[in-house]
Amino acid sequence: MHIDLNRNGSKSLPHQISETLSQRISSGLLQQGVRLPSVRSLATTLRVSQLTVSKAYDVLEKRGLIYCRQGKGCFVADPKHTKRQEDGRWQDVYDDYLPRAQLWRNFDYSEVKYPFHIAAIHSELLPLKNIGDSFASLVTQQPELMATYGNFQGDLELRGIMRDHLKTRGITLTSSDVMITSGTQQGIDLVARTFVGPGDTVYLEAPSYTGAIDVFAGRGAEMIFVPTDSEGMRVDILTRMCDQRPPKLIYTIPTFQNPSGVTMSIARRQRLLELARSYRCLIVEDDPFSDLYFHAPPPPTIKSMDSEGHVVYMKSFSKVIAPGCRIACVAAGGNILSRLIAAKSASDLGSPLLTQRAVLPFIAGKYETYAAQLRVTLRTRMEKATKLLKLYAPPGVKYILPEGGLNLWLELPASPDIARLHELAEQMSISFLPGDVCYSAETSSRHIRLCYSQMNETDMEEGLRLFLRLLGRFLQVSG
Amino acid sequence: MHIDLNRNGSKSLPHQISETLSQRISSGLLQQGVRLPSVRSLATTLRVSQLTVSKAYDVLEKRGLIYCRQGKGCFVADPKHTKRQEDGRWQDVYDDYLPRAQLWRNFDYSEVKYPFHIAAIHSELLPLKNIGDSFASLVTQQPELMATYGNFQGDLELRGIMRDHLKTRGITLTSSDVMITSGTQQGIDLVARTFVGPGDTVYLEAPSYTGAIDVFAGRGAEMIFVPTDSEGMRVDILTRMCDQRPPKLIYTIPTFQNPSGVTMSIARRQRLLELARSYRCLIVEDDPFSDLYFHAPPPPTIKSMDSEGHVVYMKSFSKVIAPGCRIACVAAGGNILSRLIAAKSASDLGSPLLTQRAVLPFIAGKYETYAAQLRVTLRTRMEKATKLLKLYAPPGVKYILPEGGLNLWLELPASPDIARLHELAEQMSISFLPGDVCYSAETSSRHIRLCYSQMNETDMEEGLRLFLRLLGRFLQVSG
Repeated sequence: MHIDLNRNGSKSLPHQISETLSQRISSGLLQQGVRLPSVRSLATTLRVSQLTVSKAYDVLEKRGLIYCRQGKGCFVADPKHTKRQEDGRWQDVYDDYLPRAQLWRNFDYSEVKYPFHIAAIHSELLPLKNIGDSFASLVTQQPELMATYGNFQGDLELRGIMRDHLKTRGITLTSSDVMITSGTQQGIDLVARTFVGPGDTVYLEAPSYTGAIDVFAGRGAEMIFVPTDSEGMRVDILTRMCDQRPPKLIYTIPTFQNPSGVTMSIARRQRLLELARSYRCLIVEDDPFSDLYFHAPPPPTIKSMDSEGHVVYMKSFSKVIAPGCRIACVAAGGNILSRLIAAKSASDLGSPLLTQRAVLPFIAGKYETYAAQLRVTLRTRMEKATKLLKLYAPPGVKYILPEGGLNLWLELPASPDIARLHELAEQMSISFLPGDVCYSAETSSRHIRLCYSQMNETDMEEGLRLFLRLLGRFLQVSG
Repeated sequence: MHIDLNRNGSKSLPHQISETLSQRISSGLLQQGVRLPSVRSLATTLRVSQLTVSKAYDVLEKRGLIYCRQGKGCFVADPKHTKRQEDGRWQDVYDDYLPRAQLWRNFDYSEVKYPFHIAAIHSELLPLKNIGDSFASLVTQQPELMATYGNFQGDLELRGIMRDHLKTRGITLTSSDVMITSGTQQGIDLVARTFVGPGDTVYLEAPSYTGAIDVFAGRGAEMIFVPTDSEGMRVDILTRMCDQRPPKLIYTIPTFQNPSGVTMSIARRQRLLELARSYRCLIVEDDPFSDLYFHAPPPPTIKSMDSEGHVVYMKSFSKVIAPGCRIACVAAGGNILSRLIAAKSASDLGSPLLTQRAVLPFIAGKYETYAAQLRVTLRTRMEKATKLLKLYAPPGVKYILPEGGLNLWLELPASPDIARLHELAEQMSISFLPGDVCYSAETSSRHIRLCYSQMNETDMEEGLRLFLRLLGRFLQVSG
């Protein structure tokens, strides 16, 4: 079993070991009944003392996550306390390098009637007819697009369109500074695999996007979560933290942040960029939502202020027009991008060319008009959702009215058993995103994220009413 | 600068450092004029002595890859010996974890008239009309496919079709043992990121697939290349090697191997599986070509003999029917697959659903008839290519008539300057794959790979004639 240990970090080694194992157990990577390595063998593998491993196992046993049997070893406990067969299959002890995979556990509930957990736009609002027509005409007129691997960096024409689009947002670059990825998730992953390694310090907002946290954890990074307030990431606190641990990379979603909805002020954007300059590090600016504002346009992107190539800017186009098409844009300068292209080639030889060409005409021609209309629709829907919140939210539940984006971020009173609430909601065919997956594993959050745009209006209103009533009953009982 | 060092390996530390830097320079990751870290600072970073770094720099300077200036430091040399501006930009010294990226440098020559370097099937032979019709009808009838992320593991129905298909090839499993990836390249990458880490031993055939070598190098693996003969990988030699260094993973292309074309005998397949059992390790069986045999069907897959889940089997469907669609199947049992699914989710949230559904009807209904016809066409084309080889290949050039697959693997006499040959060919709009990218960096190969199926017949014959004449002149001059 492989565990990345940071021997210079602030956390003790037993703590690092127990936290990693606890994450693997909670995400199901270590399944019930699996035998953990013996204290002696894990100590040898990790080059730590047996006492260190022993301490870590003690913590896990006290938390009920594992049970130990004299002479037999320690096993992952069954939370329902039923006996499980001791399964000695070789696969269970075959090492992996996946410390965390929360996204995988918290995303895929396609069966649920009220899917509040996925931040997406319902298909009836998307320009699918238009993009579908584009697919249909391409397969007739240029069938060879289905046969070609294309350029690893992405189709040159689409990169040109994206360059022009970014220019209207104040970001000036050439199409050689643009790469096309299969969604922003892949963009984040490529940055991490290229530039982040074991022990490297990555700063993120607390809370942040689960998919990014998973990726950085997978690289063995030391993730540090920076507090946020109504102006976004507390860059003043970050600056002090950087004195202690210089950043390798800063990951931020400055506009209508996921999950919290907060937008970073211009002043902080500028200071963040200054900080990256002085530490000669990268900022990943993940920007899924800046076109989805309800009132005023958000402040300029950090990338638009960046003259020395410190910002890797990511914008998902498919998220706004056709999420299943998985087309995002990564913009970066100089040899930062060329290294990311090398990583992209090893990942998948490039994104499908047909799909790139299929979304191209819409982005080139109709995107702005569509986005303007979409903003109106989403604002109306958000207002309906927040009206229901005002009517039915149980006392003590807090939220901020979002200025854009797709999510509502609720803070529950006290520290409720959110896993239990999740179970109860699922029984009613309702899903939500538990806030703790938006933090590192140590934090137990009392937040939940609800997306109000992933269903049609009737289902959303019905589902939200049902959920808020459930929440009321739940808080009464547990309070 | 980050360099993975294997302190228990057979190669000296200076050698490991100089090889890594040399790969970065040759692949363009370290560009001309870039200043290398000082001896002192690299020694500190890598926790080695300054003498070790100094030795590595000496080797690089003697090979003309870098030049050192007293008091200023060492810089990546310009091969053309012109002076370059000393560029002190911060990006050039920003660390990455990309030790090798040969694929990226040797793949993308879309401009070339005679592209012999890509192992693919020309679009006129592919069932693009059929798959295009499928796209066109889906975007009308199920437009929501463009809106949905789908299941990370892949569409359930397509997984069922793939399960049924594999059953006809003697591989019995359930659709929950199947995952859909964006091409086999992604499958290899997911296995590597999940199960291979710094210093882990990975065995491969010598030569092997460039894209796989890049991926394992990117994980910091200790790659060991096993000699092959006419029956494929020398499993007897591998067995002795494993005594010295137990395998974490064995990567093999047993059928019409890429690039050599050799097929592993049944006896060796069985012994290889035995070996994996005794070492409790994984075999990655990459199978792009088994349906493309010219005479008799190849021996059964290793996966079909695997009862204990040691084999991760990969079959690219898109390669045979529509390469640009990027749809491959990864089959593995138990919690090996569940961990790969977790990795897939972090990589890209799943492959596009529309494309998965678009290739589904063809794989379900027409694949076998199509493959039978394709085999006849490819055999005819291969015979035309080998006839030209017999007529025009310069004396001393060796090759084996392939029994299947898409490649010809040529061995040139003596040790020619293949980089120079590559340049000359490019001037004639001809590309080929230099053999050295199919080995680890130390080997200088006298092989080249030519794909005979990537152009129409006329272009292929014309291009091959031109190339063989060029080769004749080249060998005469350099001999």
